[in-house]
Amino acid sequence: VTGPPLPGEFELIARYFAPLAAENPDALGLRDDAALFKPAPGAEMVATVDMLVAGVHFLADDPPDLIARKLLRVNLSDLAAMGATPRCYLLAMAVPKDIDAAWMESFAAGLAEDQAAYGVCLAGGDTTATSGPMTLSLTALGEVPAGEAIRRSTAGAGDDIYVSGTVGDAALAVAQMQGALGPQDADTHGQFLDRYRLPRPRVALGPALRGVATAAIDLSDGLVADLGHICETSAVGAEIRAAHLPLSPAGRKVVAAKPDLVRTVLAGGDDYELLFTADPAAADNVAAIAVRCDVPVTRIGRITAGSRVRVVDDESREIDLESPGYRHF
Amino acid sequence: VTGPPLPGEFELIARYFAPLAAENPDALGLRDDAALFKPAPGAEMVATVDMLVAGVHFLADDPPDLIARKLLRVNLSDLAAMGATPRCYLLAMAVPKDIDAAWMESFAAGLAEDQAAYGVCLAGGDTTATSGPMTLSLTALGEVPAGEAIRRSTAGAGDDIYVSGTVGDAALAVAQMQGALGPQDADTHGQFLDRYRLPRPRVALGPALRGVATAAIDLSDGLVADLGHICETSAVGAEIRAAHLPLSPAGRKVVAAKPDLVRTVLAGGDDYELLFTADPAAADNVAAIAVRCDVPVTRIGRITAGSRVRVVDDESREIDLESPGYRHF
Repeated sequence: VTGPPLPGEFELIARYFAPLAAENPDALGLRDDAALFKPAPGAEMVATVDMLVAGVHFLADDPPDLIARKLLRVNLSDLAAMGATPRCYLLAMAVPKDIDAAWMESFAAGLAEDQAAYGVCLAGGDTTATSGPMTLSLTALGEVPAGEAIRRSTAGAGDDIYVSGTVGDAALAVAQMQGALGPQDADTHGQFLDRYRLPRPRVALGPALRGVATAAIDLSDGLVADLGHICETSAVGAEIRAAHLPLSPAGRKVVAAKPDLVRTVLAGGDDYELLFTADPAAADNVAAIAVRCDVPVTRIGRITAGSRVRVVDDESREIDLESPGYRHF
Repeated sequence: VTGPPLPGEFELIARYFAPLAAENPDALGLRDDAALFKPAPGAEMVATVDMLVAGVHFLADDPPDLIARKLLRVNLSDLAAMGATPRCYLLAMAVPKDIDAAWMESFAAGLAEDQAAYGVCLAGGDTTATSGPMTLSLTALGEVPAGEAIRRSTAGAGDDIYVSGTVGDAALAVAQMQGALGPQDADTHGQFLDRYRLPRPRVALGPALRGVATAAIDLSDGLVADLGHICETSAVGAEIRAAHLPLSPAGRKVVAAKPDLVRTVLAGGDDYELLFTADPAAADNVAAIAVRCDVPVTRIGRITAGSRVRVVDDESREIDLESPGYRHF
């Protein structure tokens, strides 16, 4: 650490966090025991929490603004998966001694940037010291019209399975950092890393899918694992066509060179795209919503009876997947 | 670690945390992206988060059930201070490798015990590994009739200042662990330690004070520091009579033997009592509420014009306080 040290707890809040709450009447200026807000009439509240730990979810020397934005975005992605509109968030931080004022300034700037981008505000929080790695816990609160939240457990056999955007880049970034792609793919490094470091939560698409999607989840554990969560809670199976997976141009390039990487795409996490199901009769509606939200949406398979998630190749042969997604323990 | 290791993340949730959410329709069985709940008609939501870190807020070898209960209770105390009724909570945990199944079982049992005692339920959460100390982040969500939340910033000059229960035992527990009380007070150790380890959030008193208290805060940083928060946000001062501070029998005993310990009582944190203000005309009402809630309430001073918090002794001489409360940085 070379920069000025952090100020005390109250000054820390006043300097870096109160400005993030300034436009938010919910936050009471971060000066009360708790945040206070009035839900829209008839709304249901949606609440989610994600914890990111240095050395597990990010590197201690990652740019602080990107860490902050990823932390906020993974939570907004959870809200989007339920069709909810973000309302406000609470932030708890355990801060190691080697964090200086410059780090905190960059972290707060990242939050400010994404608050503006996504229309959310800090409503409350807690900061404490730790002898361990930086540990960040963000609770996001959103709203959804009563009865309209999109659930995981309501997919039906025969439903189409869709995914937004492209999948696999975040997992390919990890594979690339581990040297699994070979040096010839170095030109794709920045694109993969960008997706890994900065998810793009589908905050417009999620709410737009209310009443159309029969079930939804955001891709954090990996496509096959997350589809498995829908299937398990909905008591259905699924069949995915590997050839239909939407890859980025960079992803297509490396998978074409090393077809086995399709397993990385299927098992890898951190895509933060929406995986959702819909009645085949709603296909035109889904396509129109995708256009309206300016988010590509691709049909990648179908919900089946049974309980298995199968991935098949062009000749309908099942692809065996060794690792069904990242697990923390 | 001698016990069986922890299961994987999904099994961990299924075994220890899903049962804590079983009676709570809000939680969607912890199987969705987020918790979903419908606020009472016309209610405002109150949201608060506290983070506890091993080695900072508790000792790594403290009984896990007590750690869990303290974590939940400090948040319920924040809700009580705003007059809110608890609704549900979200829990994020960063778990070190040396935590075994027995630890987690005891931790979950502590939550189950206090869920039953306070009528709240787990609604969602996140678990992750960490290379550092156990880090726990709990977000509590409560409700209050619209416009009736008790704030910090609304105390007025001339208001009486009250505190619930007794103060100082938690700070005296710390002083005792540091050897400041001398061996002759060893018989009080258990009583002090019990208050330090297990706060008693005033969940009945807080909501009962809606419409009566002009301002409130819960005592976590220390009586003088927390009263300072009310004064700062309300733009008022305060005068406290040290002789009026309600001490426990054990607290009275050690302060009588060593009068200087009144500074410890005034500056020490972790009481988790409610400090609140009320119009002198409401004194009978406050007394009746205290009886109805079965919580002793003591008038300890008065809000003044100005901005200083003064503590005076029996002869109205000001007591100088060196340390205005515990700060984490």
